[in-house]
Amino acid sequence: MTDVSIIGIGQTPVAEHWETSLRHLAFQAARAALDDAGLTAVDAIYIGNQHADQLSQQQHLGALIADFVGLRGVEAYRIEAADASGAAALRAGYLAIRSGAVETVMVLGVEQTTDVVGSRRTAALSTGMDADYEGTQGATPAALAALLMQRYLHEYGLSVEDFAGFSENAHLNASTNPHAMYRNRLRPGMFASAPAVAPPVSLFDAAPEGDGAAAVILTSTDHARGQVFSPIRITGSAVATDALSLHDRDDLLVLNAVNRSAGRAYQQAGISPADVDLFELHDSFAILATLSLEAAGFAELGSGCTLANPAGIGRDGQIPVATFGGLKARGHAGGATGVYQAVEAVLQLRGQADENQVSAARTALIQSIGGMGGTAIAHLLQADN
Amino acid sequence: MTDVSIIGIGQTPVAEHWETSLRHLAFQAARAALDDAGLTAVDAIYIGNQHADQLSQQQHLGALIADFVGLRGVEAYRIEAADASGAAALRAGYLAIRSGAVETVMVLGVEQTTDVVGSRRTAALSTGMDADYEGTQGATPAALAALLMQRYLHEYGLSVEDFAGFSENAHLNASTNPHAMYRNRLRPGMFASAPAVAPPVSLFDAAPEGDGAAAVILTSTDHARGQVFSPIRITGSAVATDALSLHDRDDLLVLNAVNRSAGRAYQQAGISPADVDLFELHDSFAILATLSLEAAGFAELGSGCTLANPAGIGRDGQIPVATFGGLKARGHAGGATGVYQAVEAVLQLRGQADENQVSAARTALIQSIGGMGGTAIAHLLQADN
Repeated sequence: MTDVSIIGIGQTPVAEHWETSLRHLAFQAARAALDDAGLTAVDAIYIGNQHADQLSQQQHLGALIADFVGLRGVEAYRIEAADASGAAALRAGYLAIRSGAVETVMVLGVEQTTDVVGSRRTAALSTGMDADYEGTQGATPAALAALLMQRYLHEYGLSVEDFAGFSENAHLNASTNPHAMYRNRLRPGMFASAPAVAPPVSLFDAAPEGDGAAAVILTSTDHARGQVFSPIRITGSAVATDALSLHDRDDLLVLNAVNRSAGRAYQQAGISPADVDLFELHDSFAILATLSLEAAGFAELGSGCTLANPAGIGRDGQIPVATFGGLKARGHAGGATGVYQAVEAVLQLRGQADENQVSAARTALIQSIGGMGGTAIAHLLQADN
Repeated sequence: MTDVSIIGIGQTPVAEHWETSLRHLAFQAARAALDDAGLTAVDAIYIGNQHADQLSQQQHLGALIADFVGLRGVEAYRIEAADASGAAALRAGYLAIRSGAVETVMVLGVEQTTDVVGSRRTAALSTGMDADYEGTQGATPAALAALLMQRYLHEYGLSVEDFAGFSENAHLNASTNPHAMYRNRLRPGMFASAPAVAPPVSLFDAAPEGDGAAAVILTSTDHARGQVFSPIRITGSAVATDALSLHDRDDLLVLNAVNRSAGRAYQQAGISPADVDLFELHDSFAILATLSLEAAGFAELGSGCTLANPAGIGRDGQIPVATFGGLKARGHAGGATGVYQAVEAVLQLRGQADENQVSAARTALIQSIGGMGGTAIAHLLQADN
């Protein structure tokens, strides 16, 4: 078994890139990552993408993007796990390096969806749910998140205001991230007066969809040490699934896949949640942020919201989350999001996070969720020196 | 590095399964493969699928199928490389086992597309081309295959009848395969009078689209030897890409990705084309069969058709192809096709191919092509004893 390290990162801003095609977004992130690693080529490219076949009439992104970024001929294919696709591609890249069969891999997440009408986009997003049992009922991701959040409020006697701290933290951190989609801080009262998306989910409990691309380059840890100044080791990597339909879950308010994937990653790295310096979680909805903090071992069941304040999840808090704005304010770029998390964690662990720096960050947990928790993918990243 | 073997196989018939949903097809192949391996569970499932998000409004097949086949919780995601998706999933499974991080993997290809109107299916198939440069011109896979075939006829002074032997061989072999879509032999004259699909491509130069599912179970070779009577080793595995658009190719009549992926697989196994006992090639169009035989080292450029007869590609010929009917007559089940090839090669190498048995088969090359050769994926399978 070969240990795996990240030696290059690249990202575009997350935004409504109506003027930039999917392949051009991919190009920008890919070239940035190659430059960062000091490489001109890699042996394989694994693409994380959720929606190109439905919304850009384009599948077969592996061959297309390999060629377009200047690497015609290399091994390339696409990995899909709804909005955890980027993290699934990272997992595939990790396994490829660890196999010893491939020396350098680019993991590239890319999504370009905002230039179609919203109803088509919502329909495409809803294909991440169970089409036969949820989709046919008209369920959208926001509607299912609303069911989860309502149940959570009821079960633990909370109110929607208890979730405010998640979006306030995300927007504060995004305000100093030049790649973020929304760089406005939330003023007092904004959360309380936010328009409803699907009650009780309001605009600030739900992440915006954006276009973007992010890339990381992986190689063996031995090779990495001679290659770049500060390689970042991947010391844990795990994928877990759960029932896709909410009605099939054992307990609506426990994200089993989050729990199992994080647990396995801790075990591989030989650490516990207390050793984690920052947690890039999947806050596509605030309720998933809450449930993730609980399932990944940072809060007891029902108490995730007690961390939703600067002392809990802030940059100097107990467990910093969404340190560059998270899905909520950096923006949720579908199949690219899991790779953005990796890029941001590397910036933190290299000490290159500028105003967003978490002090003395040595260990980062990143976790991506597909849909409402049907898939969860956890990686632990650690500074090498 | 861990050597990789196949210890279980399962398949459904390829057909127009209008009465069977995608998840039920997956279930049948998955359970058959588990039974064949004598296992009740695996650690991970990699899904090869091309079209479910476009034609079944269902992405996120990893979590969905893992749960539906009775393995809720395991690592699972989908791999896509147009109609090479199943082979790409096999590659992912191979790398996962070889990494040592995963002990047993199910590679499951599944496709369910025939219960939508043909125009939607053709539109979905065309997303495997370059949407911006070929799709917008109205190009379909059959239209692009026609361009290739026309160029080939012109360049080498051949006629369409020179291709007849490919479909005659495929139908002959399918006639004794209970899982094949078309079990009729071609009578003399049928090929010559076949209706046109896209001239010069006729009905018998083009594979039919069918629904189906196929699965193989992988584990380490060391573990396999204690597990089943006749494990089959994967001694070569390679993915290569090429320009997706035909107009970007260096030479229209050389499938570079086929050449490179097969070449790398031979090198890994330490063998040459002369050592291959059967070749399950990607005959989605007869012109791709021809070009594959040339690019994979079985014929000189321009002479692939000289093998299109019983002495060349027949069961007892120089290099048997499509031994269970190939895409042409077993049927082309999109992202499942690459896994069908693996199942059929294992049957041959186990000596379980009944009437379709290639005598003394020890080494099989399987190769799947995405689109018109933008991706090619080769695996060499060898009997263990």
